Amino acid sequence: MPAQLTIRFANLGREVLAYKGETVLQCARRTGVRIVGACGGRGTCGSCKVRILSGDIHLVRPDAVDEECAEPRREWVRACLVRPITDCIVEVASRAAAPVVRVDVEGDDTCAVYPLAPVVRSHDVELGGPVVAEVSPALERLLAALGEGTANRIDLGALQTVPMMLNQNAWRLRASIRDGEMIGVGPHGQRKIGLAVDLGTTNVAAYLTDLESGKCLARLGIENPQVAYGADLITRVNHAIRTSHGHIELQSAAVTAITSLAEDLCAAVDAPVDAIVDIAVCANTVMHHLLLDLPVSQLGRAPFVPATCVALDVKARDLGLAMLPGAYVHLLPNVGGFVGGDHVATLLATEERWSDSTTVVIDIGTNTEVSLMHRGTIITTSTASGPAFEGGNISAGMRAAEGAIERVRFVDGEIRIDVIGDVEPVGLCGSGVIDVLAALREAEIINRRGSICSGHPGVRDNYGRREYLLASQVAFTQDDVRAVQLAKAAIRAGLDMLLREAGLAEEAIAHVVIAGAFGHYLDIASAIAIGMFPPLPMERFAQVGNAAGAGVRMALASGATREHASHLATRCRHLELGTRPDFQKAFLGRIGF
Amino acid sequence: MPAQLTIRFANLGREVLAYKGETVLQCARRTGVRIVGACGGRGTCGSCKVRILSGDIHLVRPDAVDEECAEPRREWVRACLVRPITDCIVEVASRAAAPVVRVDVEGDDTCAVYPLAPVVRSHDVELGGPVVAEVSPALERLLAALGEGTANRIDLGALQTVPMMLNQNAWRLRASIRDGEMIGVGPHGQRKIGLAVDLGTTNVAAYLTDLESGKCLARLGIENPQVAYGADLITRVNHAIRTSHGHIELQSAAVTAITSLAEDLCAAVDAPVDAIVDIAVCANTVMHHLLLDLPVSQLGRAPFVPATCVALDVKARDLGLAMLPGAYVHLLPNVGGFVGGDHVATLLATEERWSDSTTVVIDIGTNTEVSLMHRGTIITTSTASGPAFEGGNISAGMRAAEGAIERVRFVDGEIRIDVIGDVEPVGLCGSGVIDVLAALREAEIINRRGSICSGHPGVRDNYGRREYLLASQVAFTQDDVRAVQLAKAAIRAGLDMLLREAGLAEEAIAHVVIAGAFGHYLDIASAIAIGMFPPLPMERFAQVGNAAGAGVRMALASGATREHASHLATRCRHLELGTRPDFQKAFLGRIGF
Repeated sequence: MPAQLTIRFANLGREVLAYKGETVLQCARRTGVRIVGACGGRGTCGSCKVRILSGDIHLVRPDAVDEECAEPRREWVRACLVRPITDCIVEVASRAAAPVVRVDVEGDDTCAVYPLAPVVRSHDVELGGPVVAEVSPALERLLAALGEGTANRIDLGALQTVPMMLNQNAWRLRASIRDGEMIGVGPHGQRKIGLAVDLGTTNVAAYLTDLESGKCLARLGIENPQVAYGADLITRVNHAIRTSHGHIELQSAAVTAITSLAEDLCAAVDAPVDAIVDIAVCANTVMHHLLLDLPVSQLGRAPFVPATCVALDVKARDLGLAMLPGAYVHLLPNVGGFVGGDHVATLLATEERWSDSTTVVIDIGTNTEVSLMHRGTIITTSTASGPAFEGGNISAGMRAAEGAIERVRFVDGEIRIDVIGDVEPVGLCGSGVIDVLAALREAEIINRRGSICSGHPGVRDNYGRREYLLASQVAFTQDDVRAVQLAKAAIRAGLDMLLREAGLAEEAIAHVVIAGAFGHYLDIASAIAIGMFPPLPMERFAQVGNAAGAGVRMALASGATREHASHLATRCRHLELGTRPDFQKAFLGRIGF
Repeated sequence: MPAQLTIRFANLGREVLAYKGETVLQCARRTGVRIVGACGGRGTCGSCKVRILSGDIHLVRPDAVDEECAEPRREWVRACLVRPITDCIVEVASRAAAPVVRVDVEGDDTCAVYPLAPVVRSHDVELGGPVVAEVSPALERLLAALGEGTANRIDLGALQTVPMMLNQNAWRLRASIRDGEMIGVGPHGQRKIGLAVDLGTTNVAAYLTDLESGKCLARLGIENPQVAYGADLITRVNHAIRTSHGHIELQSAAVTAITSLAEDLCAAVDAPVDAIVDIAVCANTVMHHLLLDLPVSQLGRAPFVPATCVALDVKARDLGLAMLPGAYVHLLPNVGGFVGGDHVATLLATEERWSDSTTVVIDIGTNTEVSLMHRGTIITTSTASGPAFEGGNISAGMRAAEGAIERVRFVDGEIRIDVIGDVEPVGLCGSGVIDVLAALREAEIINRRGSICSGHPGVRDNYGRREYLLASQVAFTQDDVRAVQLAKAAIRAGLDMLLREAGLAEEAIAHVVIAGAFGHYLDIASAIAIGMFPPLPMERFAQVGNAAGAGVRMALASGATREHASHLATRCRHLELGTRPDFQKAFLGRIGF
């Protein structure tokens, strides 16, 4: 057994055991301490900043230390490049700290109530207490109390708990029944809760829904722990195929994320995890296959054919998820190799906006899906935009919290920044990323090809990498510029291909619906300025936030909605760009400014 | 990690690693070397004889050595009382050796074909090979080839194998479909095999059936490895309740037994284990609950109420069984606390014999179930007869193989024995157990109370225990007499109670159907002589062998038969004797001769 050290994360109130040889980030990941690490611990993004308050450490690379500082103890270092040698006390930078559960309250507009027709029904029964010399088996008494025809079969996991539940709850139970199958029993009147999960490449968002009122009770987003095995999908596919336990590692990481979200959300609303009677998950096709342990090798090479696109219902326990014993996970249908149930969820949630006009729906994420609706047809494609817009692979990237630069403008000949809260800026959140590129381009600090030009105030060299200093602690590097250039070119070229396929010009687009958490905050004018979106009148754009999250909540709430989602998925004609030589040309044509 | 030794079982061709401190029997059990050990390794039955050919050992008790012998190396010792100190070479006595698979051949009368309507259907499909630029997912292509409506859902385990199976089998597959669910895919034309299991307290019998012809392909019986945790049901229930991992140990032991039977049977007929598409299991209620991991505490105390009696279909993998990925296990319904699906299987297989007359069906085993059929009603009870008749708790007990004494008679003033094969007798098989009691009683070597009387030739004292020597190596001890006395009294008293309940006299019984492997070979006259059966004319008795095994094979072969079995189970009125004071009196009245 490897020798162990203690790491105390002082400002998070956690103390954990580290193995000798692992980095602070690896240890944090393994023990569930949530430090943002957008590049997956490869030392490239700088999002995992920590300060070693006491203890000896080894720096994996000299650039682990990002800021010059007189006192070594006070330096900010990247958690992924620091190996503790002795017991340590560590402070996690506020920009690297974990998100917290948000308990939704009445009046919150994200707390929408969707059409409610849950697939799981609850039945409260009273069995009248134990009877002396009662010889009727527990299950038969329960079935009799439910009435004939209510349940015609019982899940084994549920059955295993019936006698204990009867005894513990004074013979008063609530049975959860799904399509004639009793999937669990709990205390009389126990809340009926559902979990909706948007399993994204970089972030995982989960929503706890009261399935009796349809209300969202709480929500939480965390970084996808699969990021540790690769920031993008192809890297993860290769990890799954080429390493001996890769598939299991990625599957467990997804399960760990969902389990931990379920536990935190339930704790926040004071409900037991086994009050979760139903789960709906939307994910892109690779994430979907990895979660289900389906083979992914064919998703790593053209023509990128999934094992299946149909909507699936599988037992949560078959995935390793422990909720109600017999609960099912519903997986929204996929459209194709890189267009998954998350985009179907987006289409579901935005249908009113696109059903009767020529509309483009853009779901911005690590992969960006684009659908073009025109005269009743839907053509859908996906482009690899990378994690830049989700805060990944951006050296100063952080979530939208105190200290984050959220707006950047070029006004009166100078670069101006807006910071969340009245504090010293510590990082750059998603909405600022496109702004900074647009502003630097306008100021001609970046040229048409995307190179940062020397000779400007604020431009400096850092270990041979040119960068622009937005604030004393926040730099935007040449690598950051390249990441955003590739992302915006991929998205715009994808749109070009759809328009070409439909024989339409950009001007024919009546509405552009921009979905995704990042898309919610981006500045449309900036995005047009850098060439990510076509130069259409501003009123044609609508920013709808995390529509995939809304869509998966709709699917959680209703069986009829699930059927409709399957119908939507089959309506989409999938355009695979990876096999099209004209896409590469379109992409290269959109890289510059 | 504990130090390890090597044990070579010379005449079985196996070499295994033993932990220091474990006995030869424990090591054999752990490593799957099949040595009969009827008492569960408690040193009481003497069925696990071995000879240490080389190596040093420690004898746990002095009576581990049963026979006097000049040369220590050549002594027969009990494997459960021998701890190896160094590497050893061990010879297993022929009477303690494991049974072997019996491959059934045409014309074998146990190879009956039952009404055939399997719940799993096989569909052979050809998908026409991979198509260049084919982008239709593997599952969707398979569903299309099957035709609409054939399968409306797919098991996750089955889905995981679809892409690989398509590639490995040149796009020609056989899909197994159960009630609209695709439960697995295999090569085109693969055999469709079912496994029927009679999960008995002491022995587990399994039958491999070709579900296309209905023929039994092979069968095998092994000792139930749960015996290691207690020979009788109450001991196992207590082990499950009172030890921290008891339930898991017993559940795994049952699963290990079924898995090992499935593997050996499949190997014998050259079929892969995943050709098993369906499994049917009959078991008494405790074994049923232990296999399903249902709580058993309520089966350990009056009124002995099961968690459920209804027939169940559960995924094999939920029990830890690895057959076809999505295969189900059908469990026959129970009748009550100690009358399980094994008795229902017996009733199913013997229905023609009892349906229109006053009949008693006796299923002899470690628990003996007795049903009385009279004017369309069935009253059923169970008595704890112990493992004596199955070779357990009988010091010289062995299976019916070469060297076994199978008949004992008192003729012309002397005890005469019949031995299987022309060899020196080495043990006593089940059929001989009742014979020897009847003969010793007739010879007045045993008195009315059941005590072995001194002063007879052949009666001797062995470490203070009186015994009768049937042959130089085969003794019948006072403990053996007591075990059989208790068993026969329990069975007869159970019958007394049923007759009293129905208001019938013994003479009213038109037929006595005797089921169970042991019941097949016992001598009816001897059984009447010792008072186990009522003194009815011989022609009223019928010995039908392992009817439970036949019944579970019938249930395996047909969904309609399963429904009929459930109907039979609900027809049985269960008489629980444990709560009746008059049973105790009846039992005591039947102990003597």
